[in-house]
Amino acid sequence: METTQEKTLNGVPTDRLVETMQAIRKQPEIAKFKFRAKNRWDDGARNVATVGAFHGALEEHPREEPFEYVLDEHPVLLGGDTGGNPVEYLLTALSGCLTTSLVYHAAARGIEVTGVESSYEGDIDLHGFLGMDESVRPGYQEIRVTMKVEADVSEEIKDELVQAAKDHSPVYDVVSNGTRVEVVRAR
Amino acid sequence: METTQEKTLNGVPTDRLVETMQAIRKQPEIAKFKFRAKNRWDDGARNVATVGAFHGALEEHPREEPFEYVLDEHPVLLGGDTGGNPVEYLLTALSGCLTTSLVYHAAARGIEVTGVESSYEGDIDLHGFLGMDESVRPGYQEIRVTMKVEADVSEEIKDELVQAAKDHSPVYDVVSNGTRVEVVRAR
Repeated sequence: METTQEKTLNGVPTDRLVETMQAIRKQPEIAKFKFRAKNRWDDGARNVATVGAFHGALEEHPREEPFEYVLDEHPVLLGGDTGGNPVEYLLTALSGCLTTSLVYHAAARGIEVTGVESSYEGDIDLHGFLGMDESVRPGYQEIRVTMKVEADVSEEIKDELVQAAKDHSPVYDVVSNGTRVEVVRAR
Repeated sequence: METTQEKTLNGVPTDRLVETMQAIRKQPEIAKFKFRAKNRWDDGARNVATVGAFHGALEEHPREEPFEYVLDEHPVLLGGDTGGNPVEYLLTALSGCLTTSLVYHAAARGIEVTGVESSYEGDIDLHGFLGMDESVRPGYQEIRVTMKVEADVSEEIKDELVQAAKDHSPVYDVVSNGTRVEVVRAR
């Protein structure tokens, strides 16, 4: 366990994690967050997303410099390959969320983790995207994930950590179960 | 309509799009793609995803330099804010996919688009992630999207373009409907 200014485990400030949960118990509204992104089409397959302010813990959180993400397609999919493509960003999101969920839940349980590595592969059949076969979905038909956890605990506890990541990861939940997406065209 | 070396519309090489569809009709296996990502935990909420080779059109497509994406959490969520968080990357993925789907389908229909801008907002209640209330899902409860399309066509055609994006976007499909995610722990 690292000890700096604050008590941390796995780089997670565990004191503040406990304080956050106590604050939420007193005032459940603290737990309500709104995350946001904007996107501007550039040309062809290339577009740029920006991630700036979000809302949470009862206030707005601006960011001085929004994060900027370039999305494109590989030439085989008729783009310029200046950035990952949208379905690769989806795997990126899933990877970050399972990892963070595992690390945070290990910290909450007092388990020191020394490494987490994971790999992701998903199958897409372009018949769906191209509208060539209505029986083929446009999205991933399946996503396979392999997670490697380094920690000085039993195999059983490592399995529990992976299970905790699956049970609590927001992106895993959305990708596994879907969610309501409302699309409106601005006039 | 732009005319360079190849015929393009909206920056999409429409001749090659038609050729791709003809090739898929002859040999459906060409349409099968496998996209991938890897992730390595750094510390606390910070981890780094890399996106490199993928499989499609019957062959592997290596990338000399993989794309690297830093994921982190804002201090209010106990991280260092060195990158967007996983649920912000999910919105990024969705934004890129709806945009590209709209632009490609417009190109396939011969419609010139001069601008696409969109914004995304999703609601998360931390009770789910923190395991404080089993009735609250960890993921987005709803995602709201606003798309603005600039094109010299009727409002009705613009609505059709947005609908085509929804109908064919791989990320919209996964986020709306979910997909099977298999997680295995490497031993």
